[in-house]
Amino acid sequence: MTNQSRILIKGGKVVNEDCSEISDVYIEDGVIQAVGPNLQMTEGVQVIDATEKLVLPGGIDTHTHMELAFMGTKAVDDFHIGTKAALAGGTTMILDFVIPQKGGSLLEAYEKWRNTADPKVCCDYSLHVAVTWWDDSVKKEMEALVREKGVNSFKMFMAYKDVFMLQDHQLYAAFSQCKELGAIAQVHAENGDLIAEGAKRMLSLGITGPEGHELCRPEEVEAEATQRAITIANAVNCPLYVVHVMSKSAAKVVAGARRNGRVVFGEPIAAGLGTDGTHYWHKDWVHAAGFVMGPPLRPDPTTPGYLMDLLANDDLSVTGTDNCTFSVCQKALGKDDFTKIPNGVNGVEDRMSVIWEKGVHSGKMDENRFVAVTSTNAAKIFNLYPQKGRIAKGSDADLVIWDPKATRTISAKTHHQAVDYNIFEGMVCHGVPVVTISRGKVVYKDGKLLAAPGEGRFIPRKPFSEFVYKRVHQRDKVRKPCAVSRRPYEGEVISLSPNGTQ
Amino acid sequence: MTNQSRILIKGGKVVNEDCSEISDVYIEDGVIQAVGPNLQMTEGVQVIDATEKLVLPGGIDTHTHMELAFMGTKAVDDFHIGTKAALAGGTTMILDFVIPQKGGSLLEAYEKWRNTADPKVCCDYSLHVAVTWWDDSVKKEMEALVREKGVNSFKMFMAYKDVFMLQDHQLYAAFSQCKELGAIAQVHAENGDLIAEGAKRMLSLGITGPEGHELCRPEEVEAEATQRAITIANAVNCPLYVVHVMSKSAAKVVAGARRNGRVVFGEPIAAGLGTDGTHYWHKDWVHAAGFVMGPPLRPDPTTPGYLMDLLANDDLSVTGTDNCTFSVCQKALGKDDFTKIPNGVNGVEDRMSVIWEKGVHSGKMDENRFVAVTSTNAAKIFNLYPQKGRIAKGSDADLVIWDPKATRTISAKTHHQAVDYNIFEGMVCHGVPVVTISRGKVVYKDGKLLAAPGEGRFIPRKPFSEFVYKRVHQRDKVRKPCAVSRRPYEGEVISLSPNGTQ
Amino acid sequence: MTNQSRILIKGGKVVNEDCSEISDVYIEDGVIQAVGPNLQMTEGVQVIDATEKLVLPGGIDTHTHMELAFMGTKAVDDFHIGTKAALAGGTTMILDFVIPQKGGSLLEAYEKWRNTADPKVCCDYSLHVAVTWWDDSVKKEMEALVREKGVNSFKMFMAYKDVFMLQDHQLYAAFSQCKELGAIAQVHAENGDLIAEGAKRMLSLGITGPEGHELCRPEEVEAEATQRAITIANAVNCPLYVVHVMSKSAAKVVAGARRNGRVVFGEPIAAGLGTDGTHYWHKDWVHAAGFVMGPPLRPDPTTPGYLMDLLANDDLSVTGTDNCTFSVCQKALGKDDFTKIPNGVNGVEDRMSVIWEKGVHSGKMDENRFVAVTSTNAAKIFNLYPQKGRIAKGSDADLVIWDPKATRTISAKTHHQAVDYNIFEGMVCHGVPVVTISRGKVVYKDGKLLAAPGEGRFIPRKPFSEFVYKRVHQRDKVRKPCAVSRRPYEGEVISLSPNGTQ
Amino acid sequence: MTNQSRILIKGGKVVNEDCSEISDVYIEDGVIQAVGPNLQMTEGVQVIDATEKLVLPGGIDTHTHMELAFMGTKAVDDFHIGTKAALAGGTTMILDFVIPQKGGSLLEAYEKWRNTADPKVCCDYSLHVAVTWWDDSVKKEMEALVREKGVNSFKMFMAYKDVFMLQDHQLYAAFSQCKELGAIAQVHAENGDLIAEGAKRMLSLGITGPEGHELCRPEEVEAEATQRAITIANAVNCPLYVVHVMSKSAAKVVAGARRNGRVVFGEPIAAGLGTDGTHYWHKDWVHAAGFVMGPPLRPDPTTPGYLMDLLANDDLSVTGTDNCTFSVCQKALGKDDFTKIPNGVNGVEDRMSVIWEKGVHSGKMDENRFVAVTSTNAAKIFNLYPQKGRIAKGSDADLVIWDPKATRTISAKTHHQAVDYNIFEGMVCHGVPVVTISRGKVVYKDGKLLAAPGEGRFIPRKPFSEFVYKRVHQRDKVRKPCAVSRRPYEGEVISLSPNGTQ
Repeated sequence: MTNQSRILIKGGKVVNEDCSEISDVYIEDGVIQAVGPNLQMTEGVQVIDATEKLVLPGGIDTHTHMELAFMGTKAVDDFHIGTKAALAGGTTMILDFVIPQKGGSLLEAYEKWRNTADPKVCCDYSLHVAVTWWDDSVKKEMEALVREKGVNSFKMFMAYKDVFMLQDHQLYAAFSQCKELGAIAQVHAENGDLIAEGAKRMLSLGITGPEGHELCRPEEVEAEATQRAITIANAVNCPLYVVHVMSKSAAKVVAGARRNGRVVFGEPIAAGLGTDGTHYWHKDWVHAAGFVMGPPLRPDPTTPGYLMDLLANDDLSVTGTDNCTFSVCQKALGKDDFTKIPNGVNGVEDRMSVIWEKGVHSGKMDENRFVAVTSTNAAKIFNLYPQKGRIAKGSDADLVIWDPKATRTISAKTHHQAVDYNIFEGMVCHGVPVVTISRGKVVYKDGKLLAAPGEGRFIPRKPFSEFVYKRVHQRDKVRKPCAVSRRPYEGEVISLSPNGTQ
Repeated sequence: MTNQSRILIKGGKVVNEDCSEISDVYIEDGVIQAVGPNLQMTEGVQVIDATEKLVLPGGIDTHTHMELAFMGTKAVDDFHIGTKAALAGGTTMILDFVIPQKGGSLLEAYEKWRNTADPKVCCDYSLHVAVTWWDDSVKKEMEALVREKGVNSFKMFMAYKDVFMLQDHQLYAAFSQCKELGAIAQVHAENGDLIAEGAKRMLSLGITGPEGHELCRPEEVEAEATQRAITIANAVNCPLYVVHVMSKSAAKVVAGARRNGRVVFGEPIAAGLGTDGTHYWHKDWVHAAGFVMGPPLRPDPTTPGYLMDLLANDDLSVTGTDNCTFSVCQKALGKDDFTKIPNGVNGVEDRMSVIWEKGVHSGKMDENRFVAVTSTNAAKIFNLYPQKGRIAKGSDADLVIWDPKATRTISAKTHHQAVDYNIFEGMVCHGVPVVTISRGKVVYKDGKLLAAPGEGRFIPRKPFSEFVYKRVHQRDKVRKPCAVSRRPYEGEVISLSPNGTQ
Repeated sequence: MTNQSRILIKGGKVVNEDCSEISDVYIEDGVIQAVGPNLQMTEGVQVIDATEKLVLPGGIDTHTHMELAFMGTKAVDDFHIGTKAALAGGTTMILDFVIPQKGGSLLEAYEKWRNTADPKVCCDYSLHVAVTWWDDSVKKEMEALVREKGVNSFKMFMAYKDVFMLQDHQLYAAFSQCKELGAIAQVHAENGDLIAEGAKRMLSLGITGPEGHELCRPEEVEAEATQRAITIANAVNCPLYVVHVMSKSAAKVVAGARRNGRVVFGEPIAAGLGTDGTHYWHKDWVHAAGFVMGPPLRPDPTTPGYLMDLLANDDLSVTGTDNCTFSVCQKALGKDDFTKIPNGVNGVEDRMSVIWEKGVHSGKMDENRFVAVTSTNAAKIFNLYPQKGRIAKGSDADLVIWDPKATRTISAKTHHQAVDYNIFEGMVCHGVPVVTISRGKVVYKDGKLLAAPGEGRFIPRKPFSEFVYKRVHQRDKVRKPCAVSRRPYEGEVISLSPNGTQ
Repeated sequence: MTNQSRILIKGGKVVNEDCSEISDVYIEDGVIQAVGPNLQMTEGVQVIDATEKLVLPGGIDTHTHMELAFMGTKAVDDFHIGTKAALAGGTTMILDFVIPQKGGSLLEAYEKWRNTADPKVCCDYSLHVAVTWWDDSVKKEMEALVREKGVNSFKMFMAYKDVFMLQDHQLYAAFSQCKELGAIAQVHAENGDLIAEGAKRMLSLGITGPEGHELCRPEEVEAEATQRAITIANAVNCPLYVVHVMSKSAAKVVAGARRNGRVVFGEPIAAGLGTDGTHYWHKDWVHAAGFVMGPPLRPDPTTPGYLMDLLANDDLSVTGTDNCTFSVCQKALGKDDFTKIPNGVNGVEDRMSVIWEKGVHSGKMDENRFVAVTSTNAAKIFNLYPQKGRIAKGSDADLVIWDPKATRTISAKTHHQAVDYNIFEGMVCHGVPVVTISRGKVVYKDGKLLAAPGEGRFIPRKPFSEFVYKRVHQRDKVRKPCAVSRRPYEGEVISLSPNGTQ
């Protein structure tokens, strides 16, 4: 009888970010014990033949919102269904966002998320925490979260005016605290004031459909905020992570900043890499509303290809999904007013396939870069490497066996998510996950999901990720501004007359 | 006896923005009556020989602050001395800024400025008005200023937090009102929050000298705000004018936006084109403090040349000075704290010479482009063209006779301004103004000033400058967003449960 | 009875590049005698009412090939029909290219062109001369052409390998001679070697249709050559004019060079501004072949809009057409091999309308910039200004009365050119020429052409156009490299051994 | 007694490109046998304490010219001294260039290089081969070199007119053959025609000193050729490697191409990263001449910092030195004519220190990126990975123990190279190599070199490096152009008249 916890993957091509090699992989107790040619089979080991297949580190989705309560309703993919779907697509870890209400405790929100997720997750997960308002208590709770709760990343909103949005001086304070704690600052970068004004304007012009959603927040609104966030972060020498880079112009801002030496990371998402905003102009309301998310997909059809070029070239670093799914009857809350359509799209299941298709199959990146942008870089940035993101002795046994020659067609009819449509409907993808192994257990095989709720674990993350902070600290040391030493001025000084002032 | 009001300029090379031609110019009653070869001399006409000289439209300085009360003291160049110095340098018109206090009436401030300036000015002038706070009364006063007072430009500050700074949504409102009225929106583009934080930080690091002034507001703080202002202006399709573009990165933002079709104009100033921010690190406090202005000059020594390249290439459009002069004993208010140094530098007298030297003598632009950037473009943008900015029949007789072969050395010892130092001290300039004619009268000749206070006039300006607004209006017509027509959604809509909300 | 040679245009809005004004225009003897309000009507003057219309300087098409013998056949628009069509479209001057055969005399070719054109032209014209090979005799003939024949522009080909193409060192020599003579160097910028290889490759892949024409010379082939030409021209400080800028990447190269201070001008053409290269993939061979020209139109559909943005922004300067028309039965020479399709498209008639539609109606440029790019800048660059390109006293009476509110639809059925199709077929254009006046005579009115062959004149052009050469000469003066003065080296010098050499 | 071939490095921080970890490293028989914490010491093992030190993969210098015969003399660092100096600096492998004479056999040249180097080298080495002329025999010899001689990279010169320079169509042919064979094409990218003309011009202006070297080949000459090479390589979908990227503008070209998806790699060198071209203007001829190399260092002093920014950001990939050293008495061959100064500078010894100082100490890159750009990327590109470039089980035992806290001052007085000056003279470097291990043997320790001639080996390299070719092959598959299928044209075709042709 084979032991679930001992697995030997034979004859596959093991792909890490630096190179690929034909190797066997031996797994025991949830950990990779050996990687090498011709590993010996011992009794009771489950053998999986991976000949002609690739063996990849399991995907890490850096950006999900499972069962998020938002805009009056709740995302249909909960931590159970959502993580199961992730596994079916080759993703073995998600990073979800704790979003406290304005004025609410970050710690309490964190505990609420843990209590919800822990019993349901089918794969490992971790939590970013959003900073949706600012005072000293928030600052202290950030510290507690980093010191005691395994959080090393905080997201600030520049959009959602009057709800989550922070002002520039609050961003400055929050970034400063991230820097102090060794966390990475994340931003949702859109100018919330302009969106609010834009939405009013579109409605006043009689534009109530999903196209209004994009028209009220065109891409320069995103690019502007991205530039601003980078400028503020640089003022405190804090590393920055821009979530969901959706437009060419915002991506250019990130790329330019990196070339200029800024420690900034850009995260495109599956939706932005695989489809575009022309759908908002679709004649069928249901179709159009399904793509509503913020920031919106862009009507410029060259956007996905451009984002992929930059992802291939390390101008953008890592990929998530912003998976936050609402079914048609939920989207319909905004049937007469686009501002009431719950924002969000699917992606957690299809991310790996979409990126393979648009990135690797297209010849823009090779399989090694694919591993970097779907898994390794996320692990490095969020300080999980090499526990996650690499197939090597000692790493967690999160893997996916990938058939680069097979194809599948994405469809809501066959996907494992709870949502009743799929923004990638009909996309034919070369490259198919055939087996997924999570924590050393086969959880997906032959199209069957073998995962159970609660089998995943919360993975705490330490601050001061070396990948992010080594340069930051060195700069603090060598680039400190210093005063010019001068002889004091001893000449006349004007007396201020009371009339001098305005 | 020659009549002061009838002048014949013989044999000069008349330079307009489009071309140069050897022509005579005949002036009567303050207006150019004829331009052409071999104009007949009639009796009683004052003849000026301009052989081998250039005859240029008088300079227009788009940006001055005469006798401004600021930071507890008052600029030493008042409207009398300041405009006299302007004439000595070949500038025949200035545009000064009315700056109401926060909460104060714009109209009252305007009247105060008029009352101060009218009896003193030696050359024509006009007034921009600053919008330093926002409510409905401000909006109404803007309308009155445009309709009744000859104002067609309003400046908004993105810096000077808690003093003049507007928030983004206030900028949106102010720009909207400018658009409505046919005025041009102007911005001082620096991120005021970052400056405030930066200043605190520098002082906390023990940096109290003038170098701290630049260190607390590095150029990306300017570039960020420039990008933001352009984005907001574009959201309301309002033309934008960025005053004092001081850095390469801000200038790039303007240039990129123009190439992208935005109706935006960038104004570099004499200081930024003629010198740089390395002076803030000068060992002599008096020297260093003399260059303090906001936004600061930049320590990158390639900045002036780069700004000139862009000015030559029409990426930047027009030049001012931000002339706002404080003498050493006033600057000394900040001897122990750079944040208390009154901001401002000279320029109104030397602008023409500095731009000729760095622009024309260097081979970057020709004499025609020189006329465009020192006079014509200002007249076009602010709706004074062709009354100002061109030597043609019917235009105001504001001219300068320029000797391109002569040289002079700029010095506080010889300049006509009230301030006791000169940021261009020692600069040798090819190109010297030899005669200045204002309103048809010789006001400067053989180094002598013949102007008298009150001889200048306030020049009212009409809204909807064609140069600025033709494209804006056409875009309003052809680029209006429109709704997709769809069949109404008639499917199920979820009921909002009270628990659904966050 | 009215005198043909005395015309008074009443009540129109006279548009020059610097501004527009409601003015009358009085014409006599082919020259504009007066421009101003309320000009008096004298007896015998033909009065034309231009109320609600614009009065524009007649268009100058910088780039035509009338009746050119090329690829075994001859362009169907000869100097008679071609210039008549030009007039119908509001163009009153063309610049055609003399193209000597490789090894042939430039002077003889010039005379041949003159002999052909002089008796046929219905409007004024001038001639560029191509330098299609290089030796000392060519150099001397260039001098003769400039000194005696009114030529101040020479075109060099970087494409058409083994036919017209010059090598880099020949370009260097030709540019040097242009500089010496005060001419402007023009280039057809495409890498001829890559085109030759690309064509072989496409045919070897079985691609014989018009799409092969673009595939064998993608836009980077144009951008590369553009960069190279600019670099070579700068090495000799020679002004450069890039004919037919067809791609975004080539246009970016020109724009970047200008911003960098290079004296370079880019000429987009009507075809490139009004349509695109997707037509090469059209299923109908006749349709697809009609668009074949070199460099090709680009399949990126955002190209025309981008070129227009740059034209609006003065990154590109001037517009031509490359009008070189072959009818379908001529294009059919290449029915089985795209390399045998005669290259060329129409444009001379529709250029003004297409640019108005895509430039002015779209809101990208105003009517003044329209005049600059269709007429004034050409006159300045080629040293015809202000004789041509401006409505002012003393200028040639070449004008067009333009109805900005009328529309017309372009079609081969109604156009005046000889060619049997039109690449702009079906385009609805706002802005219609209603009256054209050439040399002071009404030549087009109410849809009727009143021009006769030989009524146009050859317009000689002087070298050293001030618009082009003022900066060039100043740079020669102030930027000459100079040697470091050093003490001579007096240390040991190795002796060269015979084995030391490779 | 300790066995030289068994070494245990204890307690160091092992740095690979992906991360750093405190680990021991056990070496036997020239190969790394184990990497991990607390490895057991067995008897007879030489133990090296690396506590507080870094353990890095030995450097790979991608670009040397040991004892090259050039410009009439021979480089003074031969394969013995040069490789010994490399080891002293922490470099354990060099790639040198075989340069056949024009018309000479590539294979014979290769054998000559092998015969010279094999008995002398103190560290491993490999050979690039230059293609300095073109015909079918060259093509065949390239094949033999790849199939039988372990060569997978060929360099083509775009400079050195009449000596090594290839024309564009020859580059096309050579790149095609590289692609066919799975080799990587390398280029020396400068426009040779412009250099030849520039040199003549400078001499004619009386500029004979080293400044003339730069003046005759300014950076746009390099940028132009870089753009051209990339365009040609892309036309055949051949990967390209640009040797010695020396200027900001050339680096921008490379970076832009990569962002655009081109498979191109840029190699800055130690000289370009550590010093600049202002030295050519040095008053002392000896000093100035010492920096002469081609392409030259650039007078823009911001160049090194910019190149380092791009290297940090993966816009540039890998670093060499172009080490080609001539002593002062050899440089003196050009004392009266800069064109006769033998080109070349030092670097093989100091590269690692210079890059650490300017890259890591400055905070621009971390230690992991340092390993990537000094070793790993070279190994990947040239198909030596993971044999070289990584510290891992099974890799060659080429390592350097690096003290990041120590400093040393570079000087010709203390360096190990044969040349009698050092372009980095006086540079204080943080980061010092303390022990170098080559092929499992300690060859440098405590400042002593323990290496012997012939201990290095020639390392053959296989074609089709996966790192380079995976994307290339995928693109060949999915991006093949295809013909439009159309019905044949059956209309009229003009008959060619004999007069139709020009």
